[in-house]
Amino acid sequence: MSRYKLLIEFDGRPFCGWQRQTNAISVQQAIEEAVTRFCGESPKVEGAGRTDAGVHATGMVAHVDIGKPTTCDVVRNALNAHLRPHPISIIDVQSVPEDFHARFSALWRSYTYVIVNRPSPLTLEQGLAWHIPQTLECAEMTEAAHILLGHHDFTTFRSAHCQAKSPLKTLDVLEVTQTDDNRIEIYVQARSFLHNQVRIMTGALVNVGMGRWSCADVSAALEAKDRQAGPMTAPPDGLYLTGVCYDEK
Amino acid sequence: MSRYKLLIEFDGRPFCGWQRQTNAISVQQAIEEAVTRFCGESPKVEGAGRTDAGVHATGMVAHVDIGKPTTCDVVRNALNAHLRPHPISIIDVQSVPEDFHARFSALWRSYTYVIVNRPSPLTLEQGLAWHIPQTLECAEMTEAAHILLGHHDFTTFRSAHCQAKSPLKTLDVLEVTQTDDNRIEIYVQARSFLHNQVRIMTGALVNVGMGRWSCADVSAALEAKDRQAGPMTAPPDGLYLTGVCYDEK
Repeated sequence: MSRYKLLIEFDGRPFCGWQRQTNAISVQQAIEEAVTRFCGESPKVEGAGRTDAGVHATGMVAHVDIGKPTTCDVVRNALNAHLRPHPISIIDVQSVPEDFHARFSALWRSYTYVIVNRPSPLTLEQGLAWHIPQTLECAEMTEAAHILLGHHDFTTFRSAHCQAKSPLKTLDVLEVTQTDDNRIEIYVQARSFLHNQVRIMTGALVNVGMGRWSCADVSAALEAKDRQAGPMTAPPDGLYLTGVCYDEK
Repeated sequence: MSRYKLLIEFDGRPFCGWQRQTNAISVQQAIEEAVTRFCGESPKVEGAGRTDAGVHATGMVAHVDIGKPTTCDVVRNALNAHLRPHPISIIDVQSVPEDFHARFSALWRSYTYVIVNRPSPLTLEQGLAWHIPQTLECAEMTEAAHILLGHHDFTTFRSAHCQAKSPLKTLDVLEVTQTDDNRIEIYVQARSFLHNQVRIMTGALVNVGMGRWSCADVSAALEAKDRQAGPMTAPPDGLYLTGVCYDEK
């Protein structure tokens, strides 16, 4: 039995999210079925975290145990072949010690939220970005981001369905960047996140960018520790799980 | 009657190309129908050039004459509303003199061809890039590009169906850039192009990148002035019309 670390890219549009569900196809289920078709075994494919329906990934990590003697390149190519036509791609496979765990060994996760800020609708990026026609003030969004940075009770910024025991989280990075005239990217990095946290924080920053909220409103919402005091949840379209970091030793 | 210059973005996947055809929906037809729904008139929407089925655009330009008194912003917003659900977006509208012609006034056109060069299949960019699993040597492709630059008889590099009277064209720019580890972009700029010219030139550069062709083979193909001596035509997926330039005076 060998453990393999998978680096995974997927287009989230056709899936109910990462995690297996009984009534819809998930990324996890699609990969587990590909593993079974490859080696005849049915191990669980354990992901670094869950993603919501419609959320994309360029840097999801998972691990899987396979008994059949094989190599990393064969695992990658075979899973990719068996994953067709799902828009899921195994970018890289590495052999890892059996104490490596995609979820529990992760030091931090990073997400990028992509906003296209122009009056005209999306074409090539339909479903791949959040289209906001009203002009956003990027400098104001950057100022508001500083309020959320660090260790806080993020009750206002988690879904009512969030199952985490504690609402306390530490945001290590939260950066708002105007990457070109019509494009704003929000990059966020933390050990872990609450359910919907990135999308709700994005909703708050967009409120500020539109001038609906001041920075004081963001502080007040954070202090309220109440989801009802929070902003709308940003759509999944613009969200990408971009990386999961592990101790390299 | 006022003439408007339209800057257009579209996802080429659902279309038979720019130009109207009797048996399939084209980008031109979709925009002309939107114009009619907006103002009740049925003017021709004249594009800067044709694009093949499946080819995308971020910078197509067209002009149209509209009698109904209106403003540029109203034209943009109305056309975008009437274009739904087609993946075509009018990015900008400008009022232009009646002697402006999207095709005949153009000084040059530019295209970008996007290649994703990695073993694993595409997900988010399916239909939006050419996936090449074999490693490409970008430096060799750059050297081969120099051979095609300038004024040549491009008979080898045009479709058998090309209707241009002369096969003589002048390539002003042909640059191959490794934009990241897994991504190569080919940028090309010229006053005008022959039918399929960018896709056939891309086929030649990819042959060189794979080591199938040497630079001498590219020279020989160009000298042959024979489509049969040329490479395969690259798929439309990776091709974007990125800009059309006009005299600003």
